[in-house]
This record gives sequence, structure tokens and C-alpha cells, in this order.
Amino acid sequence: MALGRAIVRQPKAFLMDEPLSNLDAKLRVYMRAELKRLQKDLKITTVYVTHDQAEAMAMADRLAVMNRGKIQQYDVPIEIYNKPANTFVGVFIGSPPMNMIKASVTEKNGEVMLDAGYFLYDAKDISSILRDRTGSEIYIGIRPEDILLSTHKGDDSVFESEFYVVEPMGSNMIIDLKLGDDIIKAVIQPTTEFHAGMRVWVGFRRDKVHIFDAKTEELIV
Amino acid sequence: MALGRAIVRQPKAFLMDEPLSNLDAKLRVYMRAELKRLQKDLKITTVYVTHDQAEAMAMADRLAVMNRGKIQQYDVPIEIYNKPANTFVGVFIGSPPMNMIKASVTEKNGEVMLDAGYFLYDAKDISSILRDRTGSEIYIGIRPEDILLSTHKGDDSVFESEFYVVEPMGSNMIIDLKLGDDIIKAVIQPTTEFHAGMRVWVGFRRDKVHIFDAKTEELIV
Repeated sequence: MALGRAIVRQPKAFLMDEPLSNLDAKLRVYMRAELKRLQKDLKITTVYVTHDQAEAMAMADRLAVMNRGKIQQYDVPIEIYNKPANTFVGVFIGSPPMNMIKASVTEKNGEVMLDAGYFLYDAKDISSILRDRTGSEIYIGIRPEDILLSTHKGDDSVFESEFYVVEPMGSNMIIDLKLGDDIIKAVIQPTTEFHAGMRVWVGFRRDKVHIFDAKTEELIV
Repeated sequence: MALGRAIVRQPKAFLMDEPLSNLDAKLRVYMRAELKRLQKDLKITTVYVTHDQAEAMAMADRLAVMNRGKIQQYDVPIEIYNKPANTFVGVFIGSPPMNMIKASVTEKNGEVMLDAGYFLYDAKDISSILRDRTGSEIYIGIRPEDILLSTHKGDDSVFESEFYVVEPMGSNMIIDLKLGDDIIKAVIQPTTEFHAGMRVWVGFRRDKVHIFDAKTEELIV
């Protein structure tokens, strides 16, 4: 294998361009871990190009996300996952992708609210950052695993919705929820409680809500 | 699209052969949910062939797992995930795949133990089923999410191991653990507690341990 020939020459760096792209899915998952370990043992800097976002997250010490030849963000993988610099990175990294819900910043009785048409979200914990953007459009970015579902209305309920599709994946469940004409995806622990067609209250983990400027698509908070 | 033409003819059944295989990963995840919903709305029986195990789990009401032209198991997806009929199904459905650890059934002081060379597993809850197999070889099948990790030895600890590779995936972490010359994979919630090279105690969720006959590869319990 080409990698073996490269190693014996003791290079100062490895440049790898999609080395696992010809392998089937199972073998890729094994080989990426072996390659990561090999790189740690050899202690040779490696630049690794891949279109597989999961592979990038799994393997990289530092990850550069590129779009149309421009670096969008460069950081450790978990920072990129937790604090995506713009909507492109938010949607690109993670599967199912981060949900993006368009809304406008409004004020109601002095409180900063995000008006998504189908719901009003009380942005109380980030109101100081958003107050001077009243009237402008933003995206609410929320990852599928940061959506809370409940059969009863609770303190963190944001809107009521219908289960459009339920996908039982084994280790988790993917739930498609109707929000007007859009679909948002939630990932939850396996349960037999939920089935397609039922109505449910949807909430967001407050500390996991990302706000992006709808014009520039850059992260605000 | 071919699907549209098929729908207007109001057929009695749809036969779909990898209809999403030409789409990129993100679009596949969206389209499979749309197709599932469409099928529910149309109420037309659909036979759907795919090599994508996640797609099969997500979409099927009933799932037939085939290997070399033979049906290995036919059931609702979650039953196939939770009770795979043989080692092929166990490894094929789910990602990362179910770990398979070869061991022999032994008795020690009257207790049925599974001897994997690197550890002894006390099969107390399934001893009545395994006792008459003393001396024979089996596989212990355990899914990555059913492995318990702890920095301290506890009641459910089975063996001590080293973190070989840590893959931070964002919504979870994949941990590769050394077990002799083999690697087993665990999936855990994201944490900063664990890093490559550290030693850890490994346990199995007792009610999630699958035992397969090592010769026939069929599920025993």
C-alpha cells in the first residue's frame, strides 16, 4: 500500500488525499481509527483531505472546513461542532445536519423575542446581544440532539408539532417534525412512546441555541 | 423523476432498487424520510432494496437482511437491531458494528463463566442456558453503546483496558479499546474526561449481551 512505502522513507509530513474513499463504510470506520493511531505513533504531521465530515471529526487534531476554496473555520473538531462560525459550517458538520429556522428579532413588552412565524422564542438569556438587532432577520441554529420533545407543554416548550416521520435507527431515533411547510429533525434516545402522526411539544436546549445573521450567515452568538 | 411517473399510474406495489444511491449523504438523509412519508400517505406496498443499512433501518416497516442471496432475518427493524439472528446480522446492522469477542464456556466453582483469554465474564443471568454448552466456543456480541466505561473498578467491570483511539464525533464519542491484539469500539456521550492512552475499566450492560454459537454463528441468547 502507498502508505507503507511513504512511511519507510521517513518523510517530514504526510499529505493524504481521501485515502479511504475506495473502502466500504464498515472498513472506513475501522481504518480511520487505525490511521489516527498510526499518526500518533509516528508523530509525523499529516495533512488529510476528505469529503467525509464524520471522518474529519474523528481523525483531526485541528480541522479546516473549506467551501469553494475558502477556509470557513479552523479549530479543534469539537469547537467547530459546538461553535460553528457560520451557517455553512453548522449544516456541513454533523448528521443529521443542524436545523436552521429563519426568524426576525422583535421586542414584546420590552422582552427580546425571536419570531419564526410559527412560534415566538423568548431569547431571555441572549437578549443583551440581540436587542440592538431588533427588526433584523436571523437563523436559529439547533442541532437535532439539542431538541427536546414532550407529550405535555412544559417550561421549555417552544411550539407544538406533528411527528411527520419516525426513523428507528437502533441506537437512537430520528424524528422529523413539521414546522409550517418546513421539516426539522430531532434525534432522541430509542423509545416506543413516539409514533408518526402524534402531536408533541418541541423545545430547544437553551445553551445549545445558535444565532446566525441571516444576511452574512455569520455566527452572532 | 421516475417515481413521479410510477405514482400517477396507481400501481399495486412499488419496487425500488437503490433509488437514493446517486445522492450525496445529506440529501439521502432528507429524501429517505420524504420517501417514507410518501409511502405512508400513498398506502402502497413498497419493496425497497438498499445497501445502506441506516437507510434500511430508517425506512422499513419490515426488514429482510440478505447475505449471498439468502434471507438471514426478517422482522421489524428494531427487533433485528436488538435481537440479531446471527453474527452476520449483528455486525451488518448498526454503526460502528456490534463487537464480537470469542470466548469459551467454562465452569468455575459451579458458576458458568465465559473465558475470552483476556477476561472472565460471569454469565450468572444466562447460566441456565449456557451450562450445557460448557467447553464449547461462543461469541460475546456487544454493541458499542452498550459498553460501560469507568475510571474506577466497579461491580460491572469486566476488564481493564487502554484507550487506543478517541474519536470526538460531536454528538457522541467513539472510543477504541485494546483487548489483547483486538480492538473493541465503544460509543459514549461527549465528555472531556477521556483521552487516548489512559486506562479504564470496561463493562457490558448485562441485558444487552448477545451470545452466538461460534460454529453455526447463530444466536443462542
